[in-house]
Amino acid sequence: MTMRYLTARLAQQIDEELMNASGAFSIDQLMELAGLACAQTLATVYNREKYPRVLVCCGPGNQGGDGLVAARHLGLFGYTPTVYMPKPGSKDIYKRLETQCRNMSIPILSPSPPADLSPLKQSLSQTDVILDAIFGFSFQPPIRPPFDDVLPLLTQSKLPIVSVDIPSGWNVEKGDEYGAGLQPDVLVSLTAPKLGVKEFKGRHFLGGRFVPKAMEEKLELNLPLYPGFSQIVELPPGDQAQKL
Amino acid sequence: MTMRYLTARLAQQIDEELMNASGAFSIDQLMELAGLACAQTLATVYNREKYPRVLVCCGPGNQGGDGLVAARHLGLFGYTPTVYMPKPGSKDIYKRLETQCRNMSIPILSPSPPADLSPLKQSLSQTDVILDAIFGFSFQPPIRPPFDDVLPLLTQSKLPIVSVDIPSGWNVEKGDEYGAGLQPDVLVSLTAPKLGVKEFKGRHFLGGRFVPKAMEEKLELNLPLYPGFSQIVELPPGDQAQKL
Repeated sequence: MTMRYLTARLAQQIDEELMNASGAFSIDQLMELAGLACAQTLATVYNREKYPRVLVCCGPGNQGGDGLVAARHLGLFGYTPTVYMPKPGSKDIYKRLETQCRNMSIPILSPSPPADLSPLKQSLSQTDVILDAIFGFSFQPPIRPPFDDVLPLLTQSKLPIVSVDIPSGWNVEKGDEYGAGLQPDVLVSLTAPKLGVKEFKGRHFLGGRFVPKAMEEKLELNLPLYPGFSQIVELPPGDQAQKL
Repeated sequence: MTMRYLTARLAQQIDEELMNASGAFSIDQLMELAGLACAQTLATVYNREKYPRVLVCCGPGNQGGDGLVAARHLGLFGYTPTVYMPKPGSKDIYKRLETQCRNMSIPILSPSPPADLSPLKQSLSQTDVILDAIFGFSFQPPIRPPFDDVLPLLTQSKLPIVSVDIPSGWNVEKGDEYGAGLQPDVLVSLTAPKLGVKEFKGRHFLGGRFVPKAMEEKLELNLPLYPGFSQIVELPPGDQAQKL
């Protein structure tokens, strides 16, 4: 009974089934739980005394939304997050999540033009850990501007990186096939891990504790057991495919 | 710096400010976090080995929605919840949360007519702990049918009770002034405790870790510090008004 690693297509299908009329979840609910799991993962590995300053890098899609939720929770946990968002998403929920961060007095860097990298460079010099919420499971290459310049800067900073779901720049199913992606220290997979991270060697957590048992069984996900009432579970090193 | 106990009016105002255009929260987000906090409180006090069977009693308003969210999370935590919902809410979110519970295979008791108490009586004989999500901070007496018959049955069951925000039947500002309310063992206040529970003697938790610092300061809520990345904090016994 090994845990199933998802294709991009199956990940998309799960999202759709959770949110269609019979699944009945709203994106607000799922994003709130996903973002909370991301914040809890970061807080589990990087304590706020030693790593108070978190740069939350958000892409324009749903994963950027997870990042905005995580930034808000990190602020509530006592960290001092900054959001870097060179391409703000256009969806209504994205704008509401951005407003929630502003109401929490979280600085938001949204340079104009987006290709202006100086705010990012300056911010990296005042950061302890990066939360990478740039690209998710719907990422399709190539890496578009300004992110083609952003990813190398994040790597060159040598700061610890926590990636959400898929390290940005990786192929969702094949991993870092072009060698252009981030190399995170920590990964938090959402709902179930994707094929591309099967060989990931860092600390690997799972979040998104909202999958109904019937869906899990139908799709043979074989998810690990979450401990107690936690929203995250750490996967065992080396043999992450083994069911816990 | 003592924690502020809220009037019904101030509780209402906080809810409105969080969800208006400048607060930007959706009810889906707040209810998800509130219900999660309720589930975590119950799971903190009543472990699933000894208390697996939870009867989640839901009223027709927003507090019933918190109860439905809590029931779903309790199911994910490994409990076997049952929802008792004699007066289903009419709001769209209430119906979606109900569907989410059904998708988790959580039994829902919604007797017709609502005054038929036999399903409740039978269920109480197979219950280890009650989650009371019947009336919240907008409750106005009198206790309307069928709840005027339901509350005494819950009390007579002598089962442990966890109440959400305000024990059902209590005056939101004056407490159990008519002696007709539940006497819970555990209370989980949401956002900030209400005036009516100032003298509550059981274990008292606070949930709803989503209040922006600026709002907390403007309203002088003086909330206690939540530990780590927890969604709940237990208030000290006896002197709950003291800031932690």
